[in-house]
Amino acid sequence: MLKNRVIEALLNRKSIRKYTDQVPSEELVETIVRAGQQAPFAYQMGSLLLSREQANNPLKAPLFFIVCVDSHRHEAVMVRRGWKLVQNDLSLLLFGIQDAAYMAENMVIAAESLGMGSCFLGDIPYQAEAVIERYNLPSRVFPLVGLTMGYPAEDPPPRPRYPIEMTLLEDEYPELDDALVERAMVQMDEGYLAQDYYRQWGMIPLEGGREETFTYDTYSWTEHISRKTGQWLQSPDELLEQFAKCGFHIPGFELAASD
Amino acid sequence: MLKNRVIEALLNRKSIRKYTDQVPSEELVETIVRAGQQAPFAYQMGSLLLSREQANNPLKAPLFFIVCVDSHRHEAVMVRRGWKLVQNDLSLLLFGIQDAAYMAENMVIAAESLGMGSCFLGDIPYQAEAVIERYNLPSRVFPLVGLTMGYPAEDPPPRPRYPIEMTLLEDEYPELDDALVERAMVQMDEGYLAQDYYRQWGMIPLEGGREETFTYDTYSWTEHISRKTGQWLQSPDELLEQFAKCGFHIPGFELAASD
Repeated sequence: MLKNRVIEALLNRKSIRKYTDQVPSEELVETIVRAGQQAPFAYQMGSLLLSREQANNPLKAPLFFIVCVDSHRHEAVMVRRGWKLVQNDLSLLLFGIQDAAYMAENMVIAAESLGMGSCFLGDIPYQAEAVIERYNLPSRVFPLVGLTMGYPAEDPPPRPRYPIEMTLLEDEYPELDDALVERAMVQMDEGYLAQDYYRQWGMIPLEGGREETFTYDTYSWTEHISRKTGQWLQSPDELLEQFAKCGFHIPGFELAASD
Repeated sequence: MLKNRVIEALLNRKSIRKYTDQVPSEELVETIVRAGQQAPFAYQMGSLLLSREQANNPLKAPLFFIVCVDSHRHEAVMVRRGWKLVQNDLSLLLFGIQDAAYMAENMVIAAESLGMGSCFLGDIPYQAEAVIERYNLPSRVFPLVGLTMGYPAEDPPPRPRYPIEMTLLEDEYPELDDALVERAMVQMDEGYLAQDYYRQWGMIPLEGGREETFTYDTYSWTEHISRKTGQWLQSPDELLEQFAKCGFHIPGFELAASD
């Protein structure tokens, strides 16, 4: 592995969920946002809602960003050029989500380099209607992900990742044979168990009357992540409805007239 | 603005489209991928296809990654835990695209810090069928974005971005009044014109018999981006078909039986 200050910052990142009360300076906020803006983009469609109401923010973070896909701003520019947006919303979102995500990740890394911690909150799209109300969002802005930020009041180690041979696939997608998958699962599960991660953050309960057979000595990442995608969000309707409330049309879905 | 080596790397990034023939070392590739893996994630669903066939790679780059959303690998893990994936594909993709995008952006920054340049290629999802063939992809892997990488044979300046007040919106989404939007457009357009950017990379032709009224002395970013979203990809069908060929089901679309 090569090393420099940037690589160290990237390798050292972990989610921080406990913050001190120290208020980040204006200059720090501006630096982080400017570093975010400089990320690559398709349409420069990322924008940021910011709340500094620490007491009300998720995780009581001094800074709480909501990273949005902002077609409202984009269309305001187009109108002044005499254009009307015709691109379908699925394609627009596929590009716009990347704009927003690249910006957000730059902010995470910038914050890390300045001694701050952060944590993504992935369920924001499911709360789009509440975000619209809180921030008075116009139509055509989609809240993609929350991002808490502040000075860390905890110092956890970086978290485990898959073995590199499960991620870097050269020339051909390999057969995921038992040995490879088992090795990856062991690396993830023993890694999280060694950090006693879930004892702090909790197990996902089993639904449908299934009996719990795990304890915090055995429950780890592969079981956790399986319970999420094996139990949650079976129907797309909830997400489709939030997209529609933000004014984005995904094929095959129309908001009921009463909305 | 605060400054350090990481902030400098983030602010200095720009797309590189011309590369030298210098072959990046194994250690460099491994460092970049490990730095990518350490990005935050929902499901750790990002994976990377890599081609080092410089002569055939886009932009003749020594490294060409395709960043994928890999539910195939995820489901292989779940099966071994006795679980079956039930999460709807729209939600799964919304999380998985973020996993992949955060990883990709870490790689961009890691590369920058090691003297390499890179360029995202956003049209890869529209070539999913070809990617499936080239890399022998199993079902349930979605190619999100291409990423060329190598030692730069050009040294362009960082590109313009919106004024920070168009991106950082505190507490309430503002009225985008004429003055604000105009200021943003001027910053973008004069910035790109000062770099003579489009003379090198070309204008997007007008469709539908519209007459060209711009020259390279007047054509700039806001017109360019308006032509993309004002002319291209009106129907979602092309993208929906590629999703379906990758085995992802978006509501309201079924592949024709003949496929």
